[in-house]
Amino acid sequence: MISNDFYSPANQGTYSVRDIGDLVLEEGETLRGCKLAYRTHGKLNAARDNAVLVTTWFSGTGKVMEDVYVGPGRALDPARYFIVIVDQIGSGLSSSPHNTPGAQSMAYFPKVRIGDDVDAQLRLLKDEFGITDLALVFGGSMGGQQVYEWAVRYPDMVKRAAVVAATACNTFHDFLFTETLIEAVTSDPNWRGGWYERSEDVRDGLSRMAVIFSVLGWSTEFYEKKRWQSLLGMSSERDFINGVMRAYFAPMDANDLLCKAWKWQRGDVSRHTAGDLAKALGRIKAKCYVMPISHDMFFPPRDCEAEHRLIPNSEFRVIEAVEGHMALNGFDPAYTAQVDKHLRELLAFEA
Amino acid sequence: MISNDFYSPANQGTYSVRDIGDLVLEEGETLRGCKLAYRTHGKLNAARDNAVLVTTWFSGTGKVMEDVYVGPGRALDPARYFIVIVDQIGSGLSSSPHNTPGAQSMAYFPKVRIGDDVDAQLRLLKDEFGITDLALVFGGSMGGQQVYEWAVRYPDMVKRAAVVAATACNTFHDFLFTETLIEAVTSDPNWRGGWYERSEDVRDGLSRMAVIFSVLGWSTEFYEKKRWQSLLGMSSERDFINGVMRAYFAPMDANDLLCKAWKWQRGDVSRHTAGDLAKALGRIKAKCYVMPISHDMFFPPRDCEAEHRLIPNSEFRVIEAVEGHMALNGFDPAYTAQVDKHLRELLAFEA
Repeated sequence: MISNDFYSPANQGTYSVRDIGDLVLEEGETLRGCKLAYRTHGKLNAARDNAVLVTTWFSGTGKVMEDVYVGPGRALDPARYFIVIVDQIGSGLSSSPHNTPGAQSMAYFPKVRIGDDVDAQLRLLKDEFGITDLALVFGGSMGGQQVYEWAVRYPDMVKRAAVVAATACNTFHDFLFTETLIEAVTSDPNWRGGWYERSEDVRDGLSRMAVIFSVLGWSTEFYEKKRWQSLLGMSSERDFINGVMRAYFAPMDANDLLCKAWKWQRGDVSRHTAGDLAKALGRIKAKCYVMPISHDMFFPPRDCEAEHRLIPNSEFRVIEAVEGHMALNGFDPAYTAQVDKHLRELLAFEA
Repeated sequence: MISNDFYSPANQGTYSVRDIGDLVLEEGETLRGCKLAYRTHGKLNAARDNAVLVTTWFSGTGKVMEDVYVGPGRALDPARYFIVIVDQIGSGLSSSPHNTPGAQSMAYFPKVRIGDDVDAQLRLLKDEFGITDLALVFGGSMGGQQVYEWAVRYPDMVKRAAVVAATACNTFHDFLFTETLIEAVTSDPNWRGGWYERSEDVRDGLSRMAVIFSVLGWSTEFYEKKRWQSLLGMSSERDFINGVMRAYFAPMDANDLLCKAWKWQRGDVSRHTAGDLAKALGRIKAKCYVMPISHDMFFPPRDCEAEHRLIPNSEFRVIEAVEGHMALNGFDPAYTAQVDKHLRELLAFEA
C-alpha cells in the first residue's frame, strides 16, 4: 500500500467510500473488505424508480463522469434522477492495488473481472440505498462493459442501458492493444514486478503507455485537423503529447492501471452462456442504446453494430466525433450534446 | 559491427553489394563507403528505357520484393523489364548499423533520410548500369516514401511511379505510431544504448515491437474474420502472434530497425519546398498510381487520397485487403492480382 495524492478528494472531488465486505471474485480469490467509492446526485423518489447507475472507465474515476455527464439541465439531471456514480475496482478510489493494505496490496492484488464489479455494485445499491430497479445504467468504454454485464445478468432490474464506445465481448484486436499498454508498463525496470515505492517511479512505463494510447485513443483525423490546437489549445503536436497525454497518465498508479487493463481485456458477457454471445445478449430485457463513437479505434462502430444486432430491443446511435475514443472525456460540447440527446430519448421510453 | 545470419544469402537469397563510395547525408554526416545491396532481373534493352527500380520497406529486404512482386507472367516481368531491386540503407543488407565496421558501427551509425537513399540509388543506377531513365519506380510503405522522393526530385528521369501503402509526407499520427515501436526497443535494458553483443539479446524489445505492430499492422477485420487461420493457417490468435509476428521480427537487428524507424518518421517530400507539399508534389511529371490498402491503419486511404489530389498526373487506386498494411507481404493472391492489374495499366501508359 502506498499513498498517491492524485486519488485524494483534493483532486477527485468529494466522494464516499463504503466497505461492502468480502467479495468472492470470479477468478476464485476473495477481495477482503472490498471498498467502493461512489458519489450521488439527486434523490431516490418514493416509487424508487428513478435510480441511474453510472460506471467508470479505464483512465477515469467518478469525477469525470460527474463533471462531463451529470448536472442540472443535462439528460442526467439530479432534479429528476437519483444518480449513483460508482468507481470500478482498481480505479484508485475504490479498492485498488495501491490503496489496499496487507496481503492483497500492490502486486498481490487479486485479478478482478467486470462481473465482480457488477456484483459489488449490486450489493452497494441494495444495501446502501435499497435500490431494486435501475431506470438506466450508463457507462463508456470499460464502463460500457459493466453496463452490458448488468443488462445480461440482471435483465429484470435494468430497465434501460446506454453504452458509449464499448463492446459486450472484447475483440482480440482490442485485447492485443491493451497488451501493448500492459507491456509498456511492466517493461519499466522501475515497476519492479509491482513493488515500486511511489507511483511516480514508474514514469517511463506510464509515458510509453501514454504514447501508445495517443496513437489509438484519438484518430488520424484528430491529428490531421489539428484538433489538439483548435479544441485543446495546445501549441504543437509535441506540446499535446507531453502536456495532455503524458500529463494525463503521469499521476496515475501503474498497478491500478494494470488491474483494470487485465479486466478490460477479458470483458465478455458470453462467459455466462458458454461463449454464445447471441444467447447472452438475447437475455437483455432493457431498452438499449448502443452508441459507438464514429472515429473510435478501440471499439469501431462496425464491431458495436454487430453486437447491437444481437440485442432484442436496441437502437444503434453513432456519435460523431473525430476525437475518437478520447471524446468520452467531453472536451467538445458537440459530443456531450449528442450523448444527452440520445440519453433523453432513451429515458423517455416507458420501461 | 556484429554478425547476424538472418541477413546472409542463406536467408535472403542471392544479392550483390556495391560500394558506392562516401555518401554525404542530409543530416550532415558522411556515411563512409556506403554499400547498397541489390538484385536484378531481366536485361536493360538497347534503348535503355525498360528499367524498373523497386525499393524496400521497414521490415523487409529485397527478397520479399523479389518473391512477391517480380516474376515471369507478372506485371514486373523480367522478360520485358530490367528490374533493379535495391535494399534501403538500414535494411541489414545495405549499409546498416549492425554490419558497418569501425567508427559508424551500431549506435554510432549516422541518421539517414529517405532522400539519402534516393541519392545512393541514383549513383548505383548510373554508375553500375548507366541508367538515366526509369520506366517505373515502385515500392510500398517506406519503399513508397522513396518512390515519392524519386518522383519529386527527378521528375524527368522517373516516367512512372507506383506507390502502395505510403504517404509522401508522413502524418504525425504515423510518426507517433513509429515512436511506440522505437520506445518498445529502446526501453529494453538489453538494448544497452545500441551496444548489445548479439541481435537476439534485444528479444524482449523486439517482442514488444511485434505486438504493437500486430495492433496496427493488420486490421480489426483481419482478426474478426480470423484470417490468421484461413489465410495464414495458424491455430489460434496466440499462435499467430507468436508464430507469425514475434517470429517475423525476432531474427532482425534492433539498431537496423531503429535506423529505418527514424527515417520512416521523417519521410517528407515537402523538405524540398520549405514545407509546401502541394508545390513538391506539383513537380512530379511521372504518371502516378497512388495505391493505398483499404484497411491500412498506418496510411489510411483518406490520407493517401489527399496527396493524390496534389499530383498533376495521378490515379487513385485502392487495393482491397482486410490484411491492412501487412497485405504488402503478399500472403493473399487476391492482393497481388490487384497490384499486378494496376501496374500493368500504369506500364501501358506512354511515357
